[in-house]
Amino acid sequence: MNGKLYGIGLGPGDPELMTLKAHRLIKAARVVAYPTLAGAESFARSIAENIIAPDAVEIKIDIPMTVAREPAQAAYDIGAAAITEHLSQGQDVVVLCEGDPFFYGSFMYLFSRLSDRFESEIVPGVTSVTACAAVAKTPLSARNEVLTIIPGPLGDTEMRSRIDATGSAVIMKVGRHLGRIRALLDDMGLSARTTFIARASLPSQQVLPLGRAPDPAPYFSMILITKGQDPWLN
Amino acid sequence: MNGKLYGIGLGPGDPELMTLKAHRLIKAARVVAYPTLAGAESFARSIAENIIAPDAVEIKIDIPMTVAREPAQAAYDIGAAAITEHLSQGQDVVVLCEGDPFFYGSFMYLFSRLSDRFESEIVPGVTSVTACAAVAKTPLSARNEVLTIIPGPLGDTEMRSRIDATGSAVIMKVGRHLGRIRALLDDMGLSARTTFIARASLPSQQVLPLGRAPDPAPYFSMILITKGQDPWLN
Repeated sequence: MNGKLYGIGLGPGDPELMTLKAHRLIKAARVVAYPTLAGAESFARSIAENIIAPDAVEIKIDIPMTVAREPAQAAYDIGAAAITEHLSQGQDVVVLCEGDPFFYGSFMYLFSRLSDRFESEIVPGVTSVTACAAVAKTPLSARNEVLTIIPGPLGDTEMRSRIDATGSAVIMKVGRHLGRIRALLDDMGLSARTTFIARASLPSQQVLPLGRAPDPAPYFSMILITKGQDPWLN
Repeated sequence: MNGKLYGIGLGPGDPELMTLKAHRLIKAARVVAYPTLAGAESFARSIAENIIAPDAVEIKIDIPMTVAREPAQAAYDIGAAAITEHLSQGQDVVVLCEGDPFFYGSFMYLFSRLSDRFESEIVPGVTSVTACAAVAKTPLSARNEVLTIIPGPLGDTEMRSRIDATGSAVIMKVGRHLGRIRALLDDMGLSARTTFIARASLPSQQVLPLGRAPDPAPYFSMILITKGQDPWLN
């Protein structure tokens, strides 16, 4: 009998924002897998490090830093093959995912390679989006407001039309795009309704007016725009 | 010295999808508050019921079932006054919130009434959005895809333009709007890329093709549309 594949969301960074279910499954795991980016330390692993069993097998899936498709695809192929070996021997494999496994994560590339052949379960996690709203003390969306999640690398024209059309917006993966996005939001007259948050829930967390945000911003940073004002709040 | 106000996200329904931090704070709470809708049982309280101390004070904030603003505002005023009494006496108050406190919840109406006067902390939770994606085994969004969260009561014209403009969409609070939304998605040719999910993570959970969804749908149900296809998945 084959083992089961788990994609486990670990939340935004504070280990206490892990779910009880994630905690239970990771503590019991005999095989743990996680992606690393170009050899850097795995953020997902760092969230779980205190509960991974010392004798657990660890599968490190190193993803090259590139926008090209083929090298990353090859890395996921290699990772999926390593996981397959354990699943085929009847061992469950727990894949550690920062945030939520199906929300802008790399887990879906392993899932798409493995879920046809093996039983799987996804354990959702707290996303950086609601963690940022919490530390910024800013409600995200209420009642009939539309909320749009926008990746930072999106071009100016598309980003502007998405922000124009929504009540609240969250711009993810700001990083080196900060200067460009800040200029766009200034031009749209939205700077005053905008908060910059980096590494929400970690000790190094930053919550700043967008005008004071560091440029370039850390990779794990976002901009929260609460344009629409719920009349019930007043 | 005043007490502290906590808004605590409990996740989508399975008590094991509560965070470790929510679990710790609720277990220790001496005063617990939660909204109920027109006298019905509180969903948030039901998620936490096994860990609320038997001798904790419980503040029930009954919200009338109405689209009118004034009666609900009056109910939040009464709830905020009851919470104020405890905070002023130096007692912390934990407000239980299904999902996440700042994501389409009622907590923000208490927060807006209390956060100027009292210290507060928001503990983010797993939202129904990622819980639904997990049980539907459907990745929400990848790489540079835009994800739009759309409340079900939104009118057809606006809903159509929002769905047209996005990669993936989640329609929340489907309930009695199911028939209308299903007709719209059929007309847009999107039915095949659409999943209906009710009460994700609870024993009564339903995951169905949209064509087989019950009409009217339960209040806690949503429709997941994954229109954009990440080329890296293939």
